[in-house]
This record gives sequence, structure tokens and C-alpha cells, in this order.
Amino acid sequence: MIRITLPDGAVKEYENGTTSLQVAKSISEGLARKVLAAKVNGQVWDATRPIYHDATLKLLTWDDNDGKSTFWHSSAHLLAEAVEALYPGVKFWVGPPVEKGFYYDMDLGGRVLNDEDLKKIEAKMNELAKQQNKYERKEISKADAVKYFTEKNDEYKLDLLQGLNDGEITFYTQGQFTDLCRGPHIPDTGFIKAIKLTNVAGAYWKGDEKNRMLTRVYGVSFPNQKELDEYLAMLEEAKKRDHRKLGKELGIFTFDDEVGPGLPLWLPNGAVVIEELEKLAKQTEEKAGYKRVITPHIAKDSLYLTSGHLPYYEDSMFPAMELEGTKYYLKAMNCPHHHKIFAAEPRSYKELPLRLAEYGTCYRYEQSGELFGLMRVRCLHMNDAHIYCTKEQFYDEFRAVNEMYLKYFKIFGIDKYVMRFSVHNPAKLGQKYVNQPELWKETEELVRDVLVKTKTPFVEVQDEAAFYGPKIDVQIWSAIGREFTLATNQVDFAQSRSFKLEFTNKDNHPEIPLIIHRAPLGTHERFIGFLLEHYAGRFPLWLAPLQVKVLPISDKFLGYAQSVLEKLKKADIRAELDDRSEKIGKKIRDTEVAKVPYMLVIGEKEMADNKVSVRRQGKGDEGSIDADALVARLKEEISERS
Amino acid sequence: MIRITLPDGAVKEYENGTTSLQVAKSISEGLARKVLAAKVNGQVWDATRPIYHDATLKLLTWDDNDGKSTFWHSSAHLLAEAVEALYPGVKFWVGPPVEKGFYYDMDLGGRVLNDEDLKKIEAKMNELAKQQNKYERKEISKADAVKYFTEKNDEYKLDLLQGLNDGEITFYTQGQFTDLCRGPHIPDTGFIKAIKLTNVAGAYWKGDEKNRMLTRVYGVSFPNQKELDEYLAMLEEAKKRDHRKLGKELGIFTFDDEVGPGLPLWLPNGAVVIEELEKLAKQTEEKAGYKRVITPHIAKDSLYLTSGHLPYYEDSMFPAMELEGTKYYLKAMNCPHHHKIFAAEPRSYKELPLRLAEYGTCYRYEQSGELFGLMRVRCLHMNDAHIYCTKEQFYDEFRAVNEMYLKYFKIFGIDKYVMRFSVHNPAKLGQKYVNQPELWKETEELVRDVLVKTKTPFVEVQDEAAFYGPKIDVQIWSAIGREFTLATNQVDFAQSRSFKLEFTNKDNHPEIPLIIHRAPLGTHERFIGFLLEHYAGRFPLWLAPLQVKVLPISDKFLGYAQSVLEKLKKADIRAELDDRSEKIGKKIRDTEVAKVPYMLVIGEKEMADNKVSVRRQGKGDEGSIDADALVARLKEEISERS
Repeated sequence: MIRITLPDGAVKEYENGTTSLQVAKSISEGLARKVLAAKVNGQVWDATRPIYHDATLKLLTWDDNDGKSTFWHSSAHLLAEAVEALYPGVKFWVGPPVEKGFYYDMDLGGRVLNDEDLKKIEAKMNELAKQQNKYERKEISKADAVKYFTEKNDEYKLDLLQGLNDGEITFYTQGQFTDLCRGPHIPDTGFIKAIKLTNVAGAYWKGDEKNRMLTRVYGVSFPNQKELDEYLAMLEEAKKRDHRKLGKELGIFTFDDEVGPGLPLWLPNGAVVIEELEKLAKQTEEKAGYKRVITPHIAKDSLYLTSGHLPYYEDSMFPAMELEGTKYYLKAMNCPHHHKIFAAEPRSYKELPLRLAEYGTCYRYEQSGELFGLMRVRCLHMNDAHIYCTKEQFYDEFRAVNEMYLKYFKIFGIDKYVMRFSVHNPAKLGQKYVNQPELWKETEELVRDVLVKTKTPFVEVQDEAAFYGPKIDVQIWSAIGREFTLATNQVDFAQSRSFKLEFTNKDNHPEIPLIIHRAPLGTHERFIGFLLEHYAGRFPLWLAPLQVKVLPISDKFLGYAQSVLEKLKKADIRAELDDRSEKIGKKIRDTEVAKVPYMLVIGEKEMADNKVSVRRQGKGDEGSIDADALVARLKEEISERS
Repeated sequence: MIRITLPDGAVKEYENGTTSLQVAKSISEGLARKVLAAKVNGQVWDATRPIYHDATLKLLTWDDNDGKSTFWHSSAHLLAEAVEALYPGVKFWVGPPVEKGFYYDMDLGGRVLNDEDLKKIEAKMNELAKQQNKYERKEISKADAVKYFTEKNDEYKLDLLQGLNDGEITFYTQGQFTDLCRGPHIPDTGFIKAIKLTNVAGAYWKGDEKNRMLTRVYGVSFPNQKELDEYLAMLEEAKKRDHRKLGKELGIFTFDDEVGPGLPLWLPNGAVVIEELEKLAKQTEEKAGYKRVITPHIAKDSLYLTSGHLPYYEDSMFPAMELEGTKYYLKAMNCPHHHKIFAAEPRSYKELPLRLAEYGTCYRYEQSGELFGLMRVRCLHMNDAHIYCTKEQFYDEFRAVNEMYLKYFKIFGIDKYVMRFSVHNPAKLGQKYVNQPELWKETEELVRDVLVKTKTPFVEVQDEAAFYGPKIDVQIWSAIGREFTLATNQVDFAQSRSFKLEFTNKDNHPEIPLIIHRAPLGTHERFIGFLLEHYAGRFPLWLAPLQVKVLPISDKFLGYAQSVLEKLKKADIRAELDDRSEKIGKKIRDTEVAKVPYMLVIGEKEMADNKVSVRRQGKGDEGSIDADALVARLKEEISERS
């Protein structure tokens, strides 16, 4: 008998050689139908693989990332099976799962796949899936494996085999297709109910442009058609909401070859959005007791040697400028500058927590090929702050930071988010992690406590903390369900030591502060990129570059329209007048296209009654209202950021 | 006879060989008594030098910069005469006038001058001044000059003579002292009525540290004792108002060795002042129809090759960062980035004037030895904007810029200012100046017209324009009479050509815009340095980092004091509560030292009546007032920036 420990702590005994799938069945048939794979003692296994020892067991379904990965990996094998059936003699390189879906690199001997071919392959995959062929795992000796692929004349798999040793080689077979593969896989192809091959691209063998070009077929698959349909609709919508397209149409940002790649120029409309975001951050941080500072964008190398950015982070920094024999670097982070401000004068416990905030602009080197619109850039305007506090203050400070995130999520209508809480591995103290076992334990408990007590959705990830403390990566989803990494919070007990930061405690002794690094609004670049997609360019009133457009029906009403415009401007509402001699229909259409939240139509009746006819962007006519009352209503809507 | 043309255009005839002083006497004896030198055909001459040809003539008095320079140069000679009388055998190097006063470098053969010695020299100078010895000019051959200084065994003057040729060598003699000198000088030593030797320093011969060290004696002199007294009082006051001292005391900024010289870190109080200045600029520019943009701090070398900063301005830029084979530079100016935004889309005349504003941070290389507090730095937060307009729009645009300056001067209580208007020299078109004679003429006339019509004080300077257009340097004086260069306005008709900027005019043809570069608030660094001195650290309410301090007389009133604090904070007034258990006298003193504009004292009576007792910084008790009424009054004072 073996003892299986389930995630809830329950321990059950099973026959030696029981599979995870059998365990699932022993719990419920319904559950078993959903099991794709299982985590056995922390490793992802086939659900059908027998277990011969005591183990912890977590059953993996479509709701688990590891479940999805296994599903897509198995789909890649299904793709290969279909391709081999259609194009005998094809040879395969590797076929991994990716963030959303899978691909397989293949050598089709010069054949080019067109859309028709993809459809044929899809059809074949569906046909094979319906056969519910089992993914069968087989351990094999290196000699036998080499023999198999030598007979198949497959130089690619033989190349892969060179790096493998006896005892670690497995084959997986489903239907007519056998692959050299570490696994794991789903129980059978029947789980794969909806398939879409999305793209064909060239890919050099081993990523080296000196090698021959293979064909990479991308696909995505789902356990039901509905999810595929939703995914394809989301892709379609994401294309419409592409932040690069909207950013250009709405005059938010541009790039220029002579300025350089990854260095956005913020156009007037983008600058308005930035100003509004900074206003929000400054008001929020002011209320939360933060103090603002402003620091230069460069510093001597000695600062970064102290912080350890040199040499450990050097690859991500711009190269040095050498001046009067000293090297200067563009800052890639604001923390060292802030630490210097903390160190600028003797600090007392009375000053703590000291929260230093700055919309600091950092520069990081991303390879040209990695740059992507506002999402991967080289210039980052960061909603940064560093909180210096005592251990006793840490819980409250961390909770307040967490609450600030939640407050922002509410303002921006971000309904889906998760905090990825990375903790250390005690076995690696002093190597991967600073050797402060007590501080690790204390701060991790406090952070977990905050997340649990505030009912914040989070996942805990082992052995992925920063060198100097636990960290939280904040993942958010846009209105159309795409995932973005917004920001990272870090707890830091190392840098205060490197910078010799200390304060005088109540007992008049020097004490080392804890530091929280936080940036709830991330960078302007990534956040505005996210917002463009999230709002499809239709910014809420408070964020809209142009908030109101006044549209007189004819030139007769220009005078009154002008007086309405003045009222709006006096109330600090960003408004413009469309004084062109165009038909009102065209004026409305142009304003809709420009995604201005409010249109005020003005004609005979409105002028006579001192009113305006209100149209909301995308919502149409809302009737007429007294001009002053409207201004008051807009002011409130703006100040509430609703 | 010779014809002398005076500045007002009047032409008079005089005997050949008449001196400027005689011309002055022919106008008025009173004037003649004030004449220190004269500008003859644009060159500064001794007033006593005979004129043998027709000439334009401007008599120079103490009110002219050239008059002052001559006066101080002559004072340096007087210093040398006194030193030679007291320490025979002393040898002299050079003795020029400086911005405020003069110095002379001398070889005292190892003697060190102490304060007593300086007093003795001053006394001797006064004694010699009273002798009213004439400064006599004598043209001399190189051979005779060399003979004279060889006999005197003076290797320094012999060294100077090496670089001179026959026909350009003159001696000046007053009393017992003769110097090799190009001149000019004042008529006699009697003009020098008040002298102060301010400082002794070491100075390497020819500025080369491999040479021997000479003694440099600094001094300043005036035509009357009153001006000297005022000057010394101003120096004393300036010492108290030293922006580096106040900046530290008030927590405005700091420097850090590891960050680097010339790179200020703005502390929380400094960041508040910066935020307020930016708010003022943004509100003002918003009303004036500017649009904001935000651009990166770096760009590829190609941008600066287009703009011409490379190679012409390279010495003032930080060195390049080389990345992926491309050189990137920190921006030293914002204009090229703004031009790229203008060029980012096709422009129509309907969009002009287009005014792009940015508080851009630029980096310039100043030599370590030149760095000085906030006044000479390497990091500049600039109140920058570029106005793209048609020729027809230029007058109005330039006038609006000028009015913006005047508005700011009023807000900051800057009563004394002058615009230094530099124009081109038609003889140097195509060399020193871009070859657009018509545009030079038009824009210079328009600029002059604006200055005259708005009654703005200005001086016109020939042949000092920028390469691409006329410019205005704005000089301001602090409350204690020290002069600062605030900013520069430039008209630019070259860069729009380099960047191929154009717009479609009404006739549907491409046309090149004019550009105005302007930065009325200069840089935060220099302007806040100026304001610290100007206000002696006592910022007006709207700018003060902490605006109000609530001072309860005892702990009994803490609750009520807290409620007053909340009212202030709710009204966005920067306020704090002094909740220490200290005597009220100490609380008031501490708040005075911290230069907080308002103190609200709260005791029994105030609490009972819902009032506060108001004390103004430096002004004392102002009586008690209803708490809400006070909040309203402060809000108004802040919003009016009075």
C-alpha cells in the first residue's frame, strides 16, 4: 500500500501502482473526467502513470496552468500525428506548449503550408482526437531509441538524443504517432474538443540563422468549442483594441527613428492621460502619507556598485558615459537614489514610516527584437515609491500598499487580478537568498496574512522570491480577458544593509529599517498600453484627453455655443467647439470616431432655454439639460473618477 | 574739424584732436564730471584720448557696464601702485576687471598677505586716489617696452610683450606706477572714492598648476562711499541668504558623492516647491493655448547631427552611450525632440500656432570646477516650450511670451529686470548668421516693436544674436540687488529647415514655420536657487513647503487642534500639528526658524469660540479669527498666489 496526501491534508491509502486517475475516480467520477495530469510530489506526471511510493498529490484540470500546459503539449503531438498522416516523411524537431497554445517545428522538405493546408490538418486533428487514442508512455534505452530514429532516418530526434542518457529517455505514442518526449501528457486525445491552427512561420533550426529554416505551425486548443469561440472573439477584439493602432489614431504617442527604438514620444493627448494618472497617484499617495522627491536620471558607477546593480544587472542597463574619469549610468531603478535621500540626514524612529515617492523615469536596455509598442520599451515612467519602516510597522504598511492596489483596480474597473506571491526556499539561504532566516519567516508570514485577511486573490510560488526578500507580482486582466503583468512589490532587507541605512530607535540605538518597493500603477508606458486595450480607446471622462465637444447645429448658434464652451473651460473641463460649417450629423460622427465622451448639441431650442442636448459617446442622445447643471454634473463625474 | 555723432543722432563739429571729455564739457560740466570713458566708433577709449577723425560717440558713466569695467580696471592699477609702494620689488602679472570689481595677480616673492596687510594696502590706495593722479596713455615701441621691463627685471611683463607687436603696445602711468596695458582707463584716480579689498587667493601663473603660484588680490571700488556700504551690506545679506545654506536648512535639496557632482537630489520640501512651480507653469501655459508633450531624455546621435548639436555643442553634452552599434546621447536641449513631434504628422495652417510645452530635464556637461550649488549644475529641469507659427502670427506670439514673463515677474515680486536683446550683424550673414537677411530684418523689427510697445526695459546688443535668429537674455535682480540670468528666448528660422518642418498654408502650398524657443521660468535649479535668496527662504504661502503649523498651547487642546488640522487638510492646505508637550514659546520659535508662513495658536479661548489665533511668520500676532473664515482666507491667498 502507498499513502497519498491530498492538498487539503487528507491522507488515503491505495494499492501500490495506483494511478492519479484512479485516485480521482475514487473521489468522484465527475472529477476523474476532468483530470488532465497530476502533480506528484511536486512534479507534473501523466494522470495514468502508476505511483509506487508515498506521495503528495494534486490533480490538475483545465483550471490549473500546469493542466493547460499539458493539454497544449498533447495537442502539439496531435498536430504532429495529423501532419505525419497527411505528409508522410515529414520530420519533427520540438513541439512545446506556449503561453496560449502550442507549436511544432517541422521539416516538410520544402513544402509550404497555405491556409487550405492548415484547414486540412485541423480536420485531420479533429478526426484523430475523436478516436480517443491513449497517450502511452514507454521508458526506453538510448540504444533502442537511437535505433528507432535511425530507421526512421530522423536526424532531428537523433540530435536531441545526443544530449540524453539512459534512464531519462521516454517515448510517447498516441494512435500511429510516436515521439521522443519527456511528457507528461493527458490521458487520451478525446479531451481535445476544439482546435484552431492560428499561424505558420519560419523558424531557424535551434534558433540559429546559419541553420536551415523549419516550418513552425502555431495552434491553440480547448476542451470545448465555446472556449475556442470566446478565445477567437477575444483575439478579434484585441486586434481592434491594439494599443499601437489606438495610440496612433488618438494621438497618444509616436516613435521616431532618429530618437530611437523603444523611446516613445508622448503626444499632447498622451501627455493629458499621463498628467491625470500622475494627479491620481499624487493625490492618493499624499493622503497615504507619502512624501515626494525628485532625483536625477543618472548617477556615478559607485552608486550602482553599492546597490549591486553593477555588475549583476549591468546587461539590463544602458552602457556607461565616461566623464572626467568617472563612469555615469542612466538609472534603471529609482531605489538607490531614494536610499541616498534616506541617508542624507540622521533618521529617528519618529520619522518612520518614511515613504518616498517619485514618478521617476528609468532606462532599461531591452534588445531591439524584444521591443513592442508601449509594452516593451527602453524608457519607463514609473509610479515608484520606497517605504522605510520598522518591523513592527511592516504589517500595516504592506496592507496599506495592498489596499492602494485594490483602490486603483476599482477606479479602473479591473475586475480580475491575482497577486503572485513568491517566497524563498530555506535550502538556498545564503546562496540564492540573503541569509536572514528569521526575517524571511516573519515577513513572508506578514505578507501572507495581509493577503488572506484582505481576501486578496493570490497564488503562492515557492523558490521565486527576490534575493533580498519576498515579492508579489501583480497580474491583471483587461476587459477582453488578456493578462498583463502590472507591477511588482518587494520586501527588502538587504539594500538597507548595503547602503548602511539606519535610524535611531526608541531605546536610542541604531536599527536597520525594512524597505518596501512598490509601484501600483506600474509604468505609464505599460499601464497606458493596457488602458488603451481595456477601454478600447474610450477613456472614462476624467482620463479623456478631450472631455467634451460642443456641436452647434448651425453657425447661428455659435455665440451661445461659445458661451457654453467658456463655462466648461472655467470649470477646468477639457472642451472644444466644432465651429466648422458642417452638417450636425457629420459633426457627431467625427466626434464619435475621436472617442470624445460627451457631445453637447446646440440648436434653436437649446439656445432659447439656456440648455444643451447631451450625447454620450457610444450611447446616443440623453436629452437636454440646463447648461450649468450639466457643468456641475460633469465636474462631479470627473472628481469622482467614475 | 571732425564730425561727432551722438547717440541721439545729433551731429556736432569739433576741432581735430578733441577728447571725449571735452565733448562732454561742451554739453554740460555736470556730465563731464561723471564721464569715465567713451565709446568711439564702437570701441571703448580713454575719455582723455584725442579724436582725429569723424566718429560716433557714446559717453560712458558709472551707469554703463563699460564705464564700470573701466573704473575697476583703473582700480586694479591703483592697487598695483599701492602694493609697489608698500612692497618694493613686487612683480605683476595681469589685473583685469571682473563681474563685480577687479583683481591683480602678483609675485610677492614668498610674502603672504594677511588681513592687516590688506588694510594697509587699502589705506595706501585711498591716499593715492586722493592725489587725483592722471592715467596717462603712451604709445611705445616694442624695443623700448622690452628695455623698460628688462631694466625692471620683470619676467612677467616681458612674457606678455612676447605676444605683442609694434604699433599695438601702450603703457599707462598714474603717479609712480607704470604698467604695460591696452587700456582704456578713467581720467584720474580721484574718481575712486571707496575701496574694499575683499579676498586673497592663490592663482597659478597662466592658470597652469605646473607654474609657480602667484597671489591674487580681489577688490571692489565705487565712486562714493554709500554704494560701497550698500554693496557690503548686500554681500552680508547674500551670505545669510546663500541658497546652499538655506537649501540645506529648509530641506530643499542635497548632493551625494555617489550620485555625482552637479546632480541635485530634491528633498520632499524641494519637491513641493517644484510641484507648485510646475502647477503655475502648466496653468499659465494651458490658458495661453500651449499643449503639453513628454519626451525621452535620450536620443540617437542622428537626431543631434540633424539639429547640429553634434558636433557644435558636443563639448557641453554628456558623452555617448554606445548600444547595438548606435550612439545615444542624453539630451542637452528639448528642441530636437519637439521638432520631431511637429514632424510626426502632416500639419496644416489651421493647427498653427502650435505651442508644445514640456518640463523637460536636460543634462549638460559643466566642468567640476564650474559647478556651484543650484546655480551651475549638470541636470536642468527646464520650463521649456517651442512655438511653431507663421510670419504673420509671430508678433502676437512673441508679445504673448513677453507678457508671460511680465506676469511671472509680478507673481514673484521681481521689480528689476532687463531684456538683453541681441541682434545680428549684416556683415556676417552666411558666416556667423544664417543667410536670411529679410527674416532677420523682419523678426528683429517685430521683437523690438514688442519690447517698445509693452514698455519692457531692454538693451539692444549688436552682433550677439544666435546663429539662427535674434535672442533675448532675461536678466533679473533679487530682492537684495544681485543679478541673475533667468532665461533666454530665441527666434529660430534655421532649425525648421534642418528638420524639414513645414505646414500646408491657406493656398495649399508647403511653408516653413518660424520657431520661438522660450523658457520663462528658466530651470528649477537656477530659479529655486534665485528664489531662496530672493525670499531669504521665506516662501510666500502658495510656494511654502509647509504652509500652516497648528500650535496647541497644551495637550488639553489637542482634540480641537486636530479638528482644525483636518479642516486645513481638507482644503488642500499643507499643514501640520505640533503635538509635542513643549511650551508654546518654544513651539512658536521652532516654527519661525522653519520659516512656516502661518502659525495657528490654540488655547482655551480659541477652543471655546471655534477660533484660532493667527501669527504670521516674521510679523507676529494678528489676532484671533473664526477657523472656517481663516481656511477660506488662506485658500484665497493660495489661489491668488499673493
